Amino acid sequence: MIKISLPDGTVKEFESGATPMDVAKSISEGFARNVVSAKFNDTVVEASTPLTTDGSLILYTWNDKEGKKAFWHSTSHVMAQAIEQLYPGSKLTIGPAIENGFYYDVDFGEQKISENDFKKIEDKMLEIARGKHEFSMRSSTKAEALSYYKEQNNPFKVELIENLEDGTITFCDHDTFTDLCRGGHIPNTGIIKAVKLMSVAGAYWRGDEKNPQLTRVYGVSFPKQKDLKEYLELLEEAKKRDHRKLGKELQLFTFSQKVGQGLPLWLPKGAALRERLENFLKAAQKKAGYEMVITPHIGQKELYVTSGHYEKYGADSFQPILTPNEGEEFLLKPMNCPHHCEIYNSAPWSYKDLPKRFAEFGTVYRYEQSGELHGLTRVRGFTQDDAHIFCTPDQLDSEFKKVIDLTLYVFESLGFDEFTAQVSLRDPENKEKYIGNDDVWEKAENAILSAAKEKGLNYVVETGEAAFYGPKLDFMVKDALGRSWQLGTIQVDYNLPERFELTYKGSDNELHRPVMIHRAPFGSMERFVAVLLENTGGNFPLWLTPEQAIVLSLSEKYEKYSQKVLDLLENDEIRAVSDDRSETIGKKIRDAEMSKVPYMLIIGEQEEKDGTVSVRRHGEGDIGTMLIEDFTKLVNNEIKKTHKAFEV
Amino acid sequence: MIKISLPDGTVKEFESGATPMDVAKSISEGFARNVVSAKFNDTVVEASTPLTTDGSLILYTWNDKEGKKAFWHSTSHVMAQAIEQLYPGSKLTIGPAIENGFYYDVDFGEQKISENDFKKIEDKMLEIARGKHEFSMRSSTKAEALSYYKEQNNPFKVELIENLEDGTITFCDHDTFTDLCRGGHIPNTGIIKAVKLMSVAGAYWRGDEKNPQLTRVYGVSFPKQKDLKEYLELLEEAKKRDHRKLGKELQLFTFSQKVGQGLPLWLPKGAALRERLENFLKAAQKKAGYEMVITPHIGQKELYVTSGHYEKYGADSFQPILTPNEGEEFLLKPMNCPHHCEIYNSAPWSYKDLPKRFAEFGTVYRYEQSGELHGLTRVRGFTQDDAHIFCTPDQLDSEFKKVIDLTLYVFESLGFDEFTAQVSLRDPENKEKYIGNDDVWEKAENAILSAAKEKGLNYVVETGEAAFYGPKLDFMVKDALGRSWQLGTIQVDYNLPERFELTYKGSDNELHRPVMIHRAPFGSMERFVAVLLENTGGNFPLWLTPEQAIVLSLSEKYEKYSQKVLDLLENDEIRAVSDDRSETIGKKIRDAEMSKVPYMLIIGEQEEKDGTVSVRRHGEGDIGTMLIEDFTKLVNNEIKKTHKAFEV
Repeated sequence: MIKISLPDGTVKEFESGATPMDVAKSISEGFARNVVSAKFNDTVVEASTPLTTDGSLILYTWNDKEGKKAFWHSTSHVMAQAIEQLYPGSKLTIGPAIENGFYYDVDFGEQKISENDFKKIEDKMLEIARGKHEFSMRSSTKAEALSYYKEQNNPFKVELIENLEDGTITFCDHDTFTDLCRGGHIPNTGIIKAVKLMSVAGAYWRGDEKNPQLTRVYGVSFPKQKDLKEYLELLEEAKKRDHRKLGKELQLFTFSQKVGQGLPLWLPKGAALRERLENFLKAAQKKAGYEMVITPHIGQKELYVTSGHYEKYGADSFQPILTPNEGEEFLLKPMNCPHHCEIYNSAPWSYKDLPKRFAEFGTVYRYEQSGELHGLTRVRGFTQDDAHIFCTPDQLDSEFKKVIDLTLYVFESLGFDEFTAQVSLRDPENKEKYIGNDDVWEKAENAILSAAKEKGLNYVVETGEAAFYGPKLDFMVKDALGRSWQLGTIQVDYNLPERFELTYKGSDNELHRPVMIHRAPFGSMERFVAVLLENTGGNFPLWLTPEQAIVLSLSEKYEKYSQKVLDLLENDEIRAVSDDRSETIGKKIRDAEMSKVPYMLIIGEQEEKDGTVSVRRHGEGDIGTMLIEDFTKLVNNEIKKTHKAFEV
Repeated sequence: MIKISLPDGTVKEFESGATPMDVAKSISEGFARNVVSAKFNDTVVEASTPLTTDGSLILYTWNDKEGKKAFWHSTSHVMAQAIEQLYPGSKLTIGPAIENGFYYDVDFGEQKISENDFKKIEDKMLEIARGKHEFSMRSSTKAEALSYYKEQNNPFKVELIENLEDGTITFCDHDTFTDLCRGGHIPNTGIIKAVKLMSVAGAYWRGDEKNPQLTRVYGVSFPKQKDLKEYLELLEEAKKRDHRKLGKELQLFTFSQKVGQGLPLWLPKGAALRERLENFLKAAQKKAGYEMVITPHIGQKELYVTSGHYEKYGADSFQPILTPNEGEEFLLKPMNCPHHCEIYNSAPWSYKDLPKRFAEFGTVYRYEQSGELHGLTRVRGFTQDDAHIFCTPDQLDSEFKKVIDLTLYVFESLGFDEFTAQVSLRDPENKEKYIGNDDVWEKAENAILSAAKEKGLNYVVETGEAAFYGPKLDFMVKDALGRSWQLGTIQVDYNLPERFELTYKGSDNELHRPVMIHRAPFGSMERFVAVLLENTGGNFPLWLTPEQAIVLSLSEKYEKYSQKVLDLLENDEIRAVSDDRSETIGKKIRDAEMSKVPYMLIIGEQEEKDGTVSVRRHGEGDIGTMLIEDFTKLVNNEIKKTHKAFEV
């Protein structure tokens, strides 16, 4: 008999040789039907692998990340089989699962495939899947394995096997197909109900451009046809919401080859949007006792040697800036914290002065490989909504809670209702990896944990994931498409106060080290605007959107009334423009819908006579004719609902 | 007979050998009494120099810069004579006039002098002055001159003479004193009525630290005792108003050796002040049709090669920033214009879209030698209140006028009532030095001149002072101490539109080049705040000042009422703090006066009972007890007086 422990802590006894599927069935037949793979003692196994020792077992379904991985990896075997059958002589290389599906790199020889061939391959894959073929693993000696692929004339697999150690080589068989494989499959092909090939691309064997070029075929598969449909709709929607596309359409930002890659230029509408976001946070921060500071975008190399950033990032980052004849060396600042430490150090402080909360919309520069750059989410220059709180260890608890409040206020005001948090603690087994003594760590970790609990956060704890200088709390938001984005972060830091020799005079009249908190609710203005664009599809909250209303005149005759409406709206601080072109009203409405202006105000003879506007809501249509002051009230009421003031 | 032309265009005849003083007397005896020196055919001469050819003559009085120069240079002879008499054996080297007075570098040998010796030297100087000794120039051969100073055992003068050509050597004699001298003196010592030695400092012979160290004695002199008194008061006041001193006292900014020289760190109160200035200009710019943009602080070297900045400044500036492995080179941006050109270039424009006015508070970095750095007026990183207007040539005229209006609005709102302007035109004799054809230059120069005239500016025209890319208009403001500061600038540019190939589609459907206007009413935030500090002595206009009011409680008993007053003021957007320390009210008032808070609100039992505050105005004293709402009205009325909205 063997003892199997399950994640919920229960331990069950089975006869040696029982499989994970047997264990699943012992829980319930229904659950077993959904099990797709398993992990035994931290090693991926098949649902059909016999278990012969005591150990801990995790059973995965499609809903688990590991379950999807097994599902997609198994589907790559099915695709490989289909390709072998449809393109005889093509040589298989490797075919892993990836974040959203799988791929297989194939040497098609003289044959070429394109998207036109996808249907044929998909049909063949589904035909195989319907056969409900079981995946089964078997060991092989190195000699056998080599001989198998030499016979098949496949130099790629031969090369792979040559690099493996004898005794570790396994094959996976299903139906008539065999592949060199380390394992991790679903029970049988029958649960693959929907497949979709996504694209083909060139890829070099082993990623090296000196090697032969292969064809990489990307695909994705699902246990239900409905899942595939939803996935494709999501992809379509994500494409429409791509912030690079929307940023261009809404004239928010641009890039210039001459200025340089990864260095956004904010166009008027984007700069105004960003300013509104900054003012929104500034107002909340002012209430929360923050003070704004302004620091330069460069600093002497010495500054970053002191902070430790130079040692850590210097070689991989923008290189030092030399001066003509004084031997000075400056660096573009990668972080604002060293500058804020120097501001703290510019005056003596007493415990009565603390906490000091220095905030800055500080633009920092970090080198990224050009291949890594992506719209506003991966850039080389970005503006952090940065702040550093210098406090006594006793204040850490309440300061941390205040920062969480502020962060949640930001998320709520911007329509991110769903978010999760991760608390990163130090590894108690490797205390020597961290700076700061047990006492301060315990205090800080408890402060974070109790704050997260008290604020009702949906959080996970990751032990060993803390920075060497302190524990932290990161926020992930879910956007309208269910995608996760890392945004704000709150970090405790015991390191910089040491390195910059920061002090305050305590009530005991002795000098003490303050604790620092780094925090940025948005993360960066660039990344936040990108996420906001993708989350809202460009339909920003009314208080934030570039133009809140557009006046559409039925003809040029109403230009004067159009200007009057604009003036009245401006008096009430409503951002509005007008479209007085000699176009049809239909065309004007279509254009206004395209540019996502929330309210369209149509005016003609009747409206001019009555002092009214006929109001259309973006994406909704006509909502009636009303006096201008009633429209103003309507806008202001809507704004009040989403844009609440921050309450300390 | 010789013909002498005077600056007013008149030509008079004199006998050969007549002196400038004779010419002066021919104008009027009263005028002649004030003449201190002269320039004949662009060469400095004495008032007593015989004129023997036709030529043009300028006569200088104390009120002219050249007159002061002769006055102070002559006084340096008198000081040298006094030192020779009081410190026998001391060796004279050189003694020029400088911006505010004169100095003489002396080798005192074993003798030492300090400020304690000043009175003795000044007395001796005045005694010499009262002798009314005439200064008279005479030529000398090199041999005679060398022999004179070898006899005196003065190696410094010997070295000077050795470097002069025979035939060019002159001496100046007065009383018993003789000095090697090129000329430019007042008629006689008698008009020196007031002298003051200012300081002593070490100075190396010929400025080279390998040479012997000399003692530099600084002094200043005046034709009236009253002038000296006023000058010393001005100095005292200027010292109090030194923006570096005030910036520290008012906690506006600081510098850090670690961050680097010339890179200001704006402290909370300074950052808030700067934000209010920026918001003030932003509001006016919005009304004037500007659009804010945001651009990065670096750009590829290529960008500045295109703009021409790299060729012009590259070698003397911050050097290129390299990247780890992609061979890219970036530069810290010295100007925002190339970035704004790229924003213009990111979309096609029609003449109907113009003018486009892109504004940015853009931080730029320019290398300055560390010895040149000075507080906020000479820095290595500064934020321009920059904007670039892209317009058609026909719009230049009206755009230029609008920029002048905005600039004057800024000066008026900040209390700079006195300013002058300089119009810089191209040199019509050297047209090839400038880019752009006659037609556009004529248009632009006329636009500036007519705008300056129409706006009633007090301006001078400097021909040949235009930039190679276009004519410009610079503003100088006079501060409260009568000192001039260069602030805003407006420049027309035909060059960058060419270099960046900017275009717009004209009404003829053809592509045309727009004209660019660069403009910055403040100049830079750093420099402007420095000038504002020195002009106001830290007593900012009420709308701008960091704290508008401070609540001073008579004792801790009134802390609750103190908080209530603060809350009410905050509701009315009045910036206020409180001083609830357990100090006497006298001490609290003294401290508040020191920190220049405009209004002190004293509260005690009676005020709490009545809901009033007892108001003191900074520098004025008690102005009565009033209800809090009346105080609010008083503040808002005062603000309205200076802080008017910009009218387009």
